[in-house]
Amino acid sequence: MTFSYSDLFSFVNNIFLKAGCNNNDAEKATVALLSADLRGIDSHGVARLSGYIRLWEKGRINMQANFKIVHETPSTATVDADGGLGLIVGEYAMNIALNKAKNVGTGWVAVKGSNHFGIAAKHAMMALEENMIGIAMTNASPLVAPTHSTKRMLGTNPMAFAIPAKNEPAFVADFATTTAANGKLEILQRKNLSAPNGWIQNQDGDNSFDPNELSKGGALLPLGGDREHGSHKGFCLGAVVDIFSAVLSGANYGPWVPPFVAFLEPPANPVGSGIGHFFGAMRIDAFRPADDFLDNMDNWIRAFRAAPSIEGQPSVVIPGDPERIAEAERRVSGIPLNEKVVEDLQQLADKLNVAFPAPFKS
Amino acid sequence: MTFSYSDLFSFVNNIFLKAGCNNNDAEKATVALLSADLRGIDSHGVARLSGYIRLWEKGRINMQANFKIVHETPSTATVDADGGLGLIVGEYAMNIALNKAKNVGTGWVAVKGSNHFGIAAKHAMMALEENMIGIAMTNASPLVAPTHSTKRMLGTNPMAFAIPAKNEPAFVADFATTTAANGKLEILQRKNLSAPNGWIQNQDGDNSFDPNELSKGGALLPLGGDREHGSHKGFCLGAVVDIFSAVLSGANYGPWVPPFVAFLEPPANPVGSGIGHFFGAMRIDAFRPADDFLDNMDNWIRAFRAAPSIEGQPSVVIPGDPERIAEAERRVSGIPLNEKVVEDLQQLADKLNVAFPAPFKS
Repeated sequence: MTFSYSDLFSFVNNIFLKAGCNNNDAEKATVALLSADLRGIDSHGVARLSGYIRLWEKGRINMQANFKIVHETPSTATVDADGGLGLIVGEYAMNIALNKAKNVGTGWVAVKGSNHFGIAAKHAMMALEENMIGIAMTNASPLVAPTHSTKRMLGTNPMAFAIPAKNEPAFVADFATTTAANGKLEILQRKNLSAPNGWIQNQDGDNSFDPNELSKGGALLPLGGDREHGSHKGFCLGAVVDIFSAVLSGANYGPWVPPFVAFLEPPANPVGSGIGHFFGAMRIDAFRPADDFLDNMDNWIRAFRAAPSIEGQPSVVIPGDPERIAEAERRVSGIPLNEKVVEDLQQLADKLNVAFPAPFKS
Repeated sequence: MTFSYSDLFSFVNNIFLKAGCNNNDAEKATVALLSADLRGIDSHGVARLSGYIRLWEKGRINMQANFKIVHETPSTATVDADGGLGLIVGEYAMNIALNKAKNVGTGWVAVKGSNHFGIAAKHAMMALEENMIGIAMTNASPLVAPTHSTKRMLGTNPMAFAIPAKNEPAFVADFATTTAANGKLEILQRKNLSAPNGWIQNQDGDNSFDPNELSKGGALLPLGGDREHGSHKGFCLGAVVDIFSAVLSGANYGPWVPPFVAFLEPPANPVGSGIGHFFGAMRIDAFRPADDFLDNMDNWIRAFRAAPSIEGQPSVVIPGDPERIAEAERRVSGIPLNEKVVEDLQQLADKLNVAFPAPFKS
């Protein structure tokens, strides 16, 4: 079933209002959450709405959070998200980073006491409106085993980079630092397919092809898959995201990151506050005249887009192109939702006494 | 054959003096080059000395370069390396970044007009002496094909992160954004072994196991190896390193990066100046009290080091541990050099009329 963006917007907005958000915050949270659905990242959008609400019901998300800067310098700040929605604190923190960049060239903001912030790209892309480079990363619940270990020690810890161009669309990369993110496993589970080599290991650390392995004590693998294929580099990347997001901010790091599901309790011995994010903004003209950079980015993008393809394969994908195309289409044709997601949302609508929209087309 | 660090130091220092460096620059270049040999990164150290000299002989490295800041804000600068040694400009640029961080919390420096800067970790680690986080990255000659393409469009584009701890040794990650770097292929060539799946492709973009494939028009692969295993993420990382290092500074980017070998001419239509680097420094106490961070880093490192191993595999490797152990050993027991490297250095010594040291032990 497909729903119009505006109908889904009203619905999600009403749910956040019912959960106690003020008008302003409900709208911001809705924009952030639905930016995933618009961009075709179905795993991170409205499919997760009931998860946020269950965490709120358990008192693990504070819908009236009072964000504040707890430490700062001219180019940096640390924000305490007060247990609030990562979806909203992302915008708050990016605005601080952008303002600092306006003043001193760059701005860098670490956030503690937060929750899942949706897609990293949404936050990084705020910089594009100011003709700046944006960076966003976050740690996440431990599902990933470091190279050589059986234990889940890191999250899928994504990083996003948004880099403006002049006439070409911006370069927007947003990727988990694992071979495959959890959403990819869920697709295989639904289709009853096995996973490729190098995505997951079982609880003993042996290679596994079972997409349900995570529920049996298995783990996702860092980008690279195994040592021979560079998984130690994927581990380094996930570790840097964890340290920048959480050790720098005072959030929980590594295996102490609280789970993003209400049926699992957070660790009894937290080492920090909530989960952590890290944001950056760099003014182009802090390095060179912006026009020269933007011309060069156009040339960069065109050169890579025109690179010869391997026979039988598509062209080189400029990061951000598939998501931009998805958004252009979905704003017009609506957002397709999986049957199970629709059921889940209807139950949520009933529970909170909010009207669920009729499908746009089915 | 094994050589003492101090003997090799005198030799390399004399070579740089003969090539026209002043005393100060010769010493800095020697420290930077040999930091690779000390840390066990044999591909990036003295083995490359004659390559630097051949480029100097061709007028492609300027040994009397005059580095200067061509653009700056309180937290940023762009440096023109004037065709000089990347080995030296790394220190120059990192010092600017560190000073800016002292003033406004962080410092970020893009460099154009440069050459190969040795190991990225050496530059990033300068931040550790100031109790800061250091970042270093560089673009490099195109050897890597983007996902789906047959064409070499990016270098192995490494990134390094140095993060201080309190009682534990620092976290120091330094890695190419490819599945395997060129040095790994050279080891296989010497041993007449084939390469693992996912490291290289041939000129048509088909999987190859031939470690000599690069000399036949083949390409290295981005971290991940193929699309199914996340090579599009490795491509994103290499692209970000390229853009931060070169598009932001005004250096050559992507396929236009000049080769680091004298027998290949630089592209006839450069899009910038030399190769590019990007450096960063972040003051810990720009985000939170340094002592809290350092305690947490100790805890982070200990938790990961203690994570249970897969049966038959070693413990989790904390980034920087193997290199630190190599350095401690090599400072005492000397630096082992491959026979071909020794021959090459002896020829270089004869050519420039510099004494070549006797082996420390053989």
